[in-house]
Amino acid sequence: MRIDGREYDQIRPVTITMDYIKHAEGSVLIEVGATKVICTATVEEKVPPFMRGQGRGWVTAEYSMLPRATETRNIRESSRGKVSGRTQEIQRLIGRALRSVVDLEALGERTIWLDCDVIQADGGTRTASITGAYVAMVSAMGKLVEKQTISRLPVTDFLAAVSVGILEEKAHLDLCYAEDSQAKVDMNIVMTGQGKYVEIQGTGEEAPFSPEELQELLASGKKGITDLIAVQKQVLGVLGEGIGNMLKEKTKNV
Amino acid sequence: MRIDGREYDQIRPVTITMDYIKHAEGSVLIEVGATKVICTATVEEKVPPFMRGQGRGWVTAEYSMLPRATETRNIRESSRGKVSGRTQEIQRLIGRALRSVVDLEALGERTIWLDCDVIQADGGTRTASITGAYVAMVSAMGKLVEKQTISRLPVTDFLAAVSVGILEEKAHLDLCYAEDSQAKVDMNIVMTGQGKYVEIQGTGEEAPFSPEELQELLASGKKGITDLIAVQKQVLGVLGEGIGNMLKEKTKNV
Amino acid sequence: MRIDGREYDQIRPVTITMDYIKHAEGSVLIEVGATKVICTATVEEKVPPFMRGQGRGWVTAEYSMLPRATETRNIRESSRGKVSGRTQEIQRLIGRALRSVVDLEALGERTIWLDCDVIQADGGTRTASITGAYVAMVSAMGKLVEKQTISRLPVTDFLAAVSVGILEEKAHLDLCYAEDSQAKVDMNIVMTGQGKYVEIQGTGEEAPFSPEELQELLASGKKGITDLIAVQKQVLGVLGEGIGNMLKEKTKNV
Amino acid sequence: MRIDGREYDQIRPVTITMDYIKHAEGSVLIEVGATKVICTATVEEKVPPFMRGQGRGWVTAEYSMLPRATETRNIRESSRGKVSGRTQEIQRLIGRALRSVVDLEALGERTIWLDCDVIQADGGTRTASITGAYVAMVSAMGKLVEKQTISRLPVTDFLAAVSVGILEEKAHLDLCYAEDSQAKVDMNIVMTGQGKYVEIQGTGEEAPFSPEELQELLASGKKGITDLIAVQKQVLGVLGEGIGNMLKEKTKNV
Amino acid sequence: MRIDGREYDQIRPVTITMDYIKHAEGSVLIEVGATKVICTATVEEKVPPFMRGQGRGWVTAEYSMLPRATETRNIRESSRGKVSGRTQEIQRLIGRALRSVVDLEALGERTIWLDCDVIQADGGTRTASITGAYVAMVSAMGKLVEKQTISRLPVTDFLAAVSVGILEEKAHLDLCYAEDSQAKVDMNIVMTGQGKYVEIQGTGEEAPFSPEELQELLASGKKGITDLIAVQKQVLGVLGEGIGNMLKEKTKNV
Amino acid sequence: MRIDGREYDQIRPVTITMDYIKHAEGSVLIEVGATKVICTATVEEKVPPFMRGQGRGWVTAEYSMLPRATETRNIRESSRGKVSGRTQEIQRLIGRALRSVVDLEALGERTIWLDCDVIQADGGTRTASITGAYVAMVSAMGKLVEKQTISRLPVTDFLAAVSVGILEEKAHLDLCYAEDSQAKVDMNIVMTGQGKYVEIQGTGEEAPFSPEELQELLASGKKGITDLIAVQKQVLGVLGEGIGNMLKEKTKNV
Repeated sequence: MRIDGREYDQIRPVTITMDYIKHAEGSVLIEVGATKVICTATVEEKVPPFMRGQGRGWVTAEYSMLPRATETRNIRESSRGKVSGRTQEIQRLIGRALRSVVDLEALGERTIWLDCDVIQADGGTRTASITGAYVAMVSAMGKLVEKQTISRLPVTDFLAAVSVGILEEKAHLDLCYAEDSQAKVDMNIVMTGQGKYVEIQGTGEEAPFSPEELQELLASGKKGITDLIAVQKQVLGVLGEGIGNMLKEKTKNV
Repeated sequence: MRIDGREYDQIRPVTITMDYIKHAEGSVLIEVGATKVICTATVEEKVPPFMRGQGRGWVTAEYSMLPRATETRNIRESSRGKVSGRTQEIQRLIGRALRSVVDLEALGERTIWLDCDVIQADGGTRTASITGAYVAMVSAMGKLVEKQTISRLPVTDFLAAVSVGILEEKAHLDLCYAEDSQAKVDMNIVMTGQGKYVEIQGTGEEAPFSPEELQELLASGKKGITDLIAVQKQVLGVLGEGIGNMLKEKTKNV
Repeated sequence: MRIDGREYDQIRPVTITMDYIKHAEGSVLIEVGATKVICTATVEEKVPPFMRGQGRGWVTAEYSMLPRATETRNIRESSRGKVSGRTQEIQRLIGRALRSVVDLEALGERTIWLDCDVIQADGGTRTASITGAYVAMVSAMGKLVEKQTISRLPVTDFLAAVSVGILEEKAHLDLCYAEDSQAKVDMNIVMTGQGKYVEIQGTGEEAPFSPEELQELLASGKKGITDLIAVQKQVLGVLGEGIGNMLKEKTKNV
Repeated sequence: MRIDGREYDQIRPVTITMDYIKHAEGSVLIEVGATKVICTATVEEKVPPFMRGQGRGWVTAEYSMLPRATETRNIRESSRGKVSGRTQEIQRLIGRALRSVVDLEALGERTIWLDCDVIQADGGTRTASITGAYVAMVSAMGKLVEKQTISRLPVTDFLAAVSVGILEEKAHLDLCYAEDSQAKVDMNIVMTGQGKYVEIQGTGEEAPFSPEELQELLASGKKGITDLIAVQKQVLGVLGEGIGNMLKEKTKNV
Repeated sequence: MRIDGREYDQIRPVTITMDYIKHAEGSVLIEVGATKVICTATVEEKVPPFMRGQGRGWVTAEYSMLPRATETRNIRESSRGKVSGRTQEIQRLIGRALRSVVDLEALGERTIWLDCDVIQADGGTRTASITGAYVAMVSAMGKLVEKQTISRLPVTDFLAAVSVGILEEKAHLDLCYAEDSQAKVDMNIVMTGQGKYVEIQGTGEEAPFSPEELQELLASGKKGITDLIAVQKQVLGVLGEGIGNMLKEKTKNV
Repeated sequence: MRIDGREYDQIRPVTITMDYIKHAEGSVLIEVGATKVICTATVEEKVPPFMRGQGRGWVTAEYSMLPRATETRNIRESSRGKVSGRTQEIQRLIGRALRSVVDLEALGERTIWLDCDVIQADGGTRTASITGAYVAMVSAMGKLVEKQTISRLPVTDFLAAVSVGILEEKAHLDLCYAEDSQAKVDMNIVMTGQGKYVEIQGTGEEAPFSPEELQELLASGKKGITDLIAVQKQVLGVLGEGIGNMLKEKTKNV
């Protein structure tokens, strides 16, 4: 049995609160166990210089933690004067992952900024960020459709992310911090609603892992993604008939 | 009548949720109207180099806004690589204000870090930060007393802060953003439970203000502080008999 | 009696030397006791990006200290790679104060940069900077009028600043460093020739102050401002009949 | 057929020149096709502060490109004043990968710095860096054994890295730049001599990839690793009988 | 006799390998004894903002060392977040020196970036950079002439640089590191093919030097420059008849 | 005749005001024509980490310009967040030059910081800084002798610096800004009282210079140094009999 009583292939309780920040075009508070992340989506009516005039949009992400999101206080990156390697790695991952399910032509020459701010951390903050940012982004896109800025929802599929690791020779789905710090192998999987991989990042610094262990991790991860996307579908249903149908239609084979 | 139906000398609805972040020694979510700030207090068992070996403690603050706490998205200070002048001014103010009611000798050689992170801004974020940080700080101090690290609560009084401004020739208490952006004069007042001033910062960039207007602003601010401290007292009552009494005793003349 | 023999409500000897730096459009060396500040005013024929095309001008300030302006040597902010919070707070204050008496429309789309460089510090450097920068600014504006770039002096009033504090239960005007380091309460007042407040910043970190003490501080400050403006008037008289009259007329009710 | 005439599962010609930089404890120039990386290993007789007194060593890496290693000139990161997210991600990957085959206890309290400087880039610079850094590191360790600073080679296995991608629906091993820029899926695999995974990083930003494609990529990557380790074995043979045997013995089951 | 058996006025063996980096418009590896520098020349079809619209070109240089180019490892300037004073001094020197022999009008509105990256250092890295950068620059210019972007080689003379110092009361030409660290006086001389000075930088921090010693240093330096330019001529001869003749003609009086 | 009526080998009027800043151990205002520099010397009772425990002292310099020291306003280096290459080059030069005449053993384990702040610039700011910093340094050393911290003045000679350049085929001594901006060749010479070179930096970016021109520049520079040292001697005479004699004795052969 696991530290918090879960099955090996069971994710933690997930709650997604829509429209959490009133100023943002899209926003959620996602809670995965004790991990809590505020994800906001901001629509900016321009694209970065290197993309101008191509008629395509852009999606980019920033990630941060409040100093006391963790067991001990972390120095702010603004005080340090620079963004750490870990933070940059995570925000590049989030941006890349989200772009994989966006039809950038259909989005038009605008940028969606996804801000993922961890207010309480208990493992899996980057995967929770991706899962939550997807909902915030679709919510913001829904407003663009409602305002008739764009004619259809420029997403091609659902998208969620989950961590999976090996502890005591066994794959564990959705590691909490206590598990994560003991895992010999740690993997993050980002997957679409149709079950295709967008990103696989597996690391065996403590101990290299065998091809068999890899297959076990992949299977466990797929189970987790399916459960997370079920939550997203439920939450995005509240967007109303019009938007909801559009998203349903787009992804009806999922 | 005011934009949100309030009286001229009425503060916005205030809610303080205790223990909002599980890892921190003290933490609150303070909501003043639509302004929401997470305040955490972290106890560190050392003081800055310039204070070592003097047997006295230190209290310091950091302040930040999530990028989408505001109407339009702000670039993160960590991305800019430096903390803005406005942020530094605010965090210096918060630290100075809180120190004014702490008995640094009684605290002993330890530092309390107060992190004030604005997750939604609608005017008065620095004053909400001070009012909320006070509660987070006392809560963290309460845990030190419970653990018998220190023998008594090292605070000398209650402390709250409020803004007050002049719009259309009239003093308005606790400005929301819409009012703040139209005010001719803007003042922040930090005051103790005994009605003494800790900080007065009044600015008449748009139009200098007369001695009479100053007196009107001071009177309105005093009313606001009294109302805010009433909320603090209620919330801190839940700390339990021991701590509650200690605080009550210290400040019985208030 | 005070440490340097002054009365409680007496300012230190003030000297303002005009045209101290030959390259600048306006410049003074202001000496207030042993505090010496070089203030230059630079006219730039453009405004910051956020103000372009509005037909209004801008006034902004920078403040710095030579490393050995003080008792012990300070590391240069250029060596540290960043401007300290204290410096930013002061330069924001100076800019805000000066703008309060400038008619930005009449100035036209140009920026006046006020550089205040403290070459010797003995308390009151920020207030001396404001008092001196006012003279440098008007002097630079005078040249714009002489060159007929603008038709009239775009100022609405005189402006000076002074510090006042409480030592041994008593208000002291214009603190020198020795007094400043012992003061329980420290306040800076910026006031116009007509006796209106532009800025009040009072801090009681060491000890909160009562409403009665506040009134005492305000009264003492007003006395100091009046004396400083008298010096400014005398110095600006040398600008010649034309400019002098213009300034006199503008502020004849003072 | 591929752009440069290779089979789909064929790596580019690989040359590793030992002792390329005379000052370094270990150094190689690794050439993989037109990609050229100078890898040096520096032994420092201390560990980072967070590891002191634990009797364990540390291995860390830095990665950089000369400005003109690429088709168009890149601005130096020292001129920008910060290390890019991409660079940090790569140097974290290299350090993590190398540590996975080092016995940090046996290394003792010393740090090995691995510097990977790309002087000419044509795809696969991060994987060439790992493959080359392994040889530089073992070479430096060999010198520590020769000097009897440590009694045995503190490595547990061989280690190499290769890229693999999907172009035109087909897995391609060891992508050159022209292929890399057209690949729909890009994966980097770091593997030990015993065929265990140390790191898998697969990204399908352009198009998510199916589980079947994933298996194809993994198989192709394994072929590449085997070929690269064969080159490493040959080159490290020149280290002489003593060291060579030690390494052979450690890894005899490979 | 000198440490490496050379005569006092003998330079170290010099090798210049042309077209060392395939992507650059011009590139060399210059080896002066054990000092090795990769010099690349990049042609950019624009000039810095302050030079636009004047019909003149620009030549600028950057200099860096690999961390392990030296006996002990140096921290990367990108990790420090700033370029050291020494580096800036050297790159300003290289740029200034090269511009002295370029006809900027004839170059047209384009910039030549000269990157000098020291991969192994053994004294004289800045002078080797200048001598090598000259060849890389002319090689890049040759390509512009071949493509008929410009009609003739926009250089006015050959250019080389050498160090010379005083050890044990005697002038030594082209100091290696062991000599450099013992020299009482250190001088760098940059000279044209016609024997004119472009730059003289002599420093006697350890001991001031007499006018007689200065003359000795100048004479030894001239000898070194002549030998270095002979190597440049030989190497640039391979550029082919057309370019070779152009260069020969320009500098026939040398 | 020259622009300001001087002879070709005549320096501008020089004034050195002693004890210009009351807080510093040594300080002067040096005026060379319209160039004005405040030089302060600060004694710190420790040396940089790399020198500790060797019983030797250190001398280092910092240089800066007020924003409006020049014709047009310069952005502060503290605002830019970094010290420019030019500034670093100058402060390295000043430090190196001053150290050449200091007996670091006799100084003992302490550092002398020389701050040179240009308040008005009209050419020759770096040479004026050296000439002025020498006086400030000796003045601070004099105080150490008076306090019997050290037993004798730890200087070995006088030291001054001057610029010299070639305009219209002729050597000009001590260039003012108008001359400097037209000079084809620019040279700075630092020389001791005994007529030995400490530093020669000659640059012919606009036009390389011949050996004959070099000799002419050196001769003119020597004349300037002699005149400057005469002023230093006069000013340092006021240090009083004791110190004055010590300095005279040390340098009696000059």
